[in-house]
Amino acid sequence: MDNYPSILLEEAVNQFASLPGVGRKTALRHVLRMLRLSEGEVEAFANSLVRLRKEVHYCRLCHNITDQDICPICQSPRRDRKLVCVVENVQDIMSIENTGQYNGLYHVLGGIISPMDGVGPSDLEIDSLIKRLSQEDIEEVILALPTTMEGDTTNFYLYRRIQNAGLAKTPKVSQLARGVAVGNDLEYTDEITLGRSIVNRIDFKV
Amino acid sequence: MDNYPSILLEEAVNQFASLPGVGRKTALRHVLRMLRLSEGEVEAFANSLVRLRKEVHYCRLCHNITDQDICPICQSPRRDRKLVCVVENVQDIMSIENTGQYNGLYHVLGGIISPMDGVGPSDLEIDSLIKRLSQEDIEEVILALPTTMEGDTTNFYLYRRIQNAGLAKTPKVSQLARGVAVGNDLEYTDEITLGRSIVNRIDFKV
Repeated sequence: MDNYPSILLEEAVNQFASLPGVGRKTALRHVLRMLRLSEGEVEAFANSLVRLRKEVHYCRLCHNITDQDICPICQSPRRDRKLVCVVENVQDIMSIENTGQYNGLYHVLGGIISPMDGVGPSDLEIDSLIKRLSQEDIEEVILALPTTMEGDTTNFYLYRRIQNAGLAKTPKVSQLARGVAVGNDLEYTDEITLGRSIVNRIDFKV
Repeated sequence: MDNYPSILLEEAVNQFASLPGVGRKTALRHVLRMLRLSEGEVEAFANSLVRLRKEVHYCRLCHNITDQDICPICQSPRRDRKLVCVVENVQDIMSIENTGQYNGLYHVLGGIISPMDGVGPSDLEIDSLIKRLSQEDIEEVILALPTTMEGDTTNFYLYRRIQNAGLAKTPKVSQLARGVAVGNDLEYTDEITLGRSIVNRIDFKV
């Protein structure tokens, strides 16, 4: 796909193709869609991106995305300020919020420790987490990182850092329950998950 | 995914999610990517879309996309002006140009006849094709539409329209060769294609 009939078309295709997971054919489809919109609609699209970039930044406390200095969750008087849930990224906050099952605060690491990708502890918001723990009265840190090797490594690193931080009161550290997903048949659950869910079985509740 | 931390974020997600084939999760990934770009880069992205929409339109003759009044292909003195290749959309022109095997002009229908989708002959650039044939000295019309039922229907309709248009000189009408794709094993070729490739076999050339 190199014979673009217009340089403007090619430029717009290049822009869309720079997005993650968008190839040149998909980018072209997006661009042709733009040509079918009205000028006003394309301007609204463009302006929403420029305004987003200008006015949205990261919360000073938890590094969530916000258009204020401190995000609505950190500001809310109805949240339990003794609980901090550590997540990899902003999407994870949205996922947990959508469950409606959590009422504490968050802390976004901005990634997880991954030597293969060249991501070490100093690239993540770990120092700021320890600082929060030393300044705020936090009773429990919930580690809600991916259940991958990198996630486990980061969990372990965070646990050690919290234990050795010399905090006046070391908070409890917990992690998400792992087990058979709700609605899953046992025969389609992978062996490691199924094995752990037997070892870590819980009391039957009615 | 309804708990967006910022209304600006939600607006940008809505814009991306309006693109064909982009769901809200993918849209969110695109938006978070925008937040990691510099302000200048986001402005360049936005401006390329606005400029595209303002300055790009359809060629007056063949309905290809162009930023001029008449597209570079229609303008070119090196193209064979006696040949017109009829295609469904602009992407098809790019695909054929990429083969380097065609040196004539094009005519973009802007779709194909599809009663299921409510697309009839009057929604397509068919009248303008007949007008071109009556005004220009065209010897051959190549139908390069999709090899689907809708494509076949449109081919047939176009053939009849050309025959009955009362042209001073009716051009020859041809269509793309159909057969086993280059590089394909026979056992993986569908029966209809394989059957037609036997019926329409061609002389062996060395």
